[in-house]
Amino acid sequence: MTSTPTTRIPVYLDCDTGIDDALALAYLLASPEIDLVGIGSVSGNVSAAQGAVNTLDLLALAGRPDVPVAVGAHHPVAGEFDGGVPHIHGRNGVGNVDLPPSGLEPVAESAAELLIRLSHQHEGELRVLAIGPFTNLAEALRIDAGLAGRVHGVTVMGGAALTPGNVTPVAEANVWNDPEAAAEVVGADWDVTLVPLDVTEENVFEESDREALLAAETPLARALGEILDVYFDFYVVVYGRRSCALHDPLSAALVVGGITATKAPAVPIVVDTTQGPGRGQTICDLRGQRMGTHDRVGRRTRVVLDTDRPLAEHLVERILAYRPAV
Amino acid sequence: MTSTPTTRIPVYLDCDTGIDDALALAYLLASPEIDLVGIGSVSGNVSAAQGAVNTLDLLALAGRPDVPVAVGAHHPVAGEFDGGVPHIHGRNGVGNVDLPPSGLEPVAESAAELLIRLSHQHEGELRVLAIGPFTNLAEALRIDAGLAGRVHGVTVMGGAALTPGNVTPVAEANVWNDPEAAAEVVGADWDVTLVPLDVTEENVFEESDREALLAAETPLARALGEILDVYFDFYVVVYGRRSCALHDPLSAALVVGGITATKAPAVPIVVDTTQGPGRGQTICDLRGQRMGTHDRVGRRTRVVLDTDRPLAEHLVERILAYRPAV
Repeated sequence: MTSTPTTRIPVYLDCDTGIDDALALAYLLASPEIDLVGIGSVSGNVSAAQGAVNTLDLLALAGRPDVPVAVGAHHPVAGEFDGGVPHIHGRNGVGNVDLPPSGLEPVAESAAELLIRLSHQHEGELRVLAIGPFTNLAEALRIDAGLAGRVHGVTVMGGAALTPGNVTPVAEANVWNDPEAAAEVVGADWDVTLVPLDVTEENVFEESDREALLAAETPLARALGEILDVYFDFYVVVYGRRSCALHDPLSAALVVGGITATKAPAVPIVVDTTQGPGRGQTICDLRGQRMGTHDRVGRRTRVVLDTDRPLAEHLVERILAYRPAV
Repeated sequence: MTSTPTTRIPVYLDCDTGIDDALALAYLLASPEIDLVGIGSVSGNVSAAQGAVNTLDLLALAGRPDVPVAVGAHHPVAGEFDGGVPHIHGRNGVGNVDLPPSGLEPVAESAAELLIRLSHQHEGELRVLAIGPFTNLAEALRIDAGLAGRVHGVTVMGGAALTPGNVTPVAEANVWNDPEAAAEVVGADWDVTLVPLDVTEENVFEESDREALLAAETPLARALGEILDVYFDFYVVVYGRRSCALHDPLSAALVVGGITATKAPAVPIVVDTTQGPGRGQTICDLRGQRMGTHDRVGRRTRVVLDTDRPLAEHLVERILAYRPAV
């Protein structure tokens, strides 16, 4: 792999791989605009340990064993990891598919430590993309208060603004799994772009897209097509057909620039950390939206409410075109 | 006034009159489908006492001094009345217009007592329409646990399902002013129809509608045109022009049947009574809405999300056509 870090944007990925995490990872590897400089795992779809194994297996399939993977937090800031969602992502997080074991090991650092180190190495340039619960980011902020000032921006897949949640009537899974961490991340002094269900559920991957991956030349693309099988089954209750939402890939595409947010107002965002019925909700202050007066100059939290085009076709194209240089 | 109670549906109105309350009241009086058998006032837009005065003045203007008005709760279930919203409804709640004093007195009962008495008198038939905070309804439920079983149904203007609130990012004023009461009302064993901002803000009264009222033959209609002046000013920040939302009249029209709900799924509704950022939110479980699987058989709480036609023209027609029989 020839990387050209002088022109590529450095990206740290925090993930709970996970099927749509796997698609996002492949998309990031296939995107010449960015350089994936490190990955942290966190418990969410699966445990942080399993997420790291899955990530390393996928990196090996992609011919990118050089990307450092750090195991992150097993438990959320408050409480304990709930065991994940095997009925959605499969028992192993990758749709019960046995990926070829990479033989790779995670780095010795924690995910928070890796993120902090990379924030020094790429000071002012590093983009953070978090597509799992935000435990590692919160931990890193607590270890190093200067972190926020060294990061160019944070894009997080999570929350629901004006659409129902997917765990409770108002809470989305990544935030629900660690509301206290999410509150710390949206409350820190850095630019945060929230990519909520409002837009991720509008981006659907269809059976034809999956078949295109299955017919691909590269083992990575074929593996993605296979692991999507279980995920597609789950989404029948959501969309009425085998398919899936592109939560994590959309967030990745917004960081890469393959997709552009056309409506992403800067508004106050508060995470409900009570034990009440609103726990885990991302409360985005969209009052005044009829008049456009909800966009607040200087506010550092944005919520993406619309994008320029559907993601699926672009996602398939990139993944099919990707050839490991190794 | 000749009333034909054998064919008219008996309605108890609970209100905090209030400019849009005044429109709703006039609409109810002008609607032959229903018989307005009693009115309770509650603190909200103005104090319960002022709301009763305004209601009696409007009833006198309408030639309906026979409708009993009871003063209801001054303070919400928890906490104290906050003084109302003079910047929206005027200092006196009716747009700073000096209505001709009715000389009428409220009845000696409290609003809760009046509601309970009417629920016996019209057992199984009484419709309750609450367009202010729900303090009186909660009080009545606590006084008489059998109330819910004697009422045909409860329609409440309040809450926000998938649209921003109007007091906080998630809370609408009627619920915000007494979340504990709202929780009791939606949790009681009766049929509740929630008419939230999602639909009320879609129904706008324009300057041309107001002018039609100002040019009317009846003093009631002209007074309504006058009191709307202040209210129209407030709504410039919402709609970008002098106009207003028809919160309370829409709720009244749904009870009368002048407007029909075309989308009103039966879903769990929970009111956030925490002291957190979600306080006062009406959490409607609309997960599954893409598939229509959110509508739950047997659930007694419905939320109105769409209606068959705009209200304004119908509202003006009814009010202009109304002639007091006295």
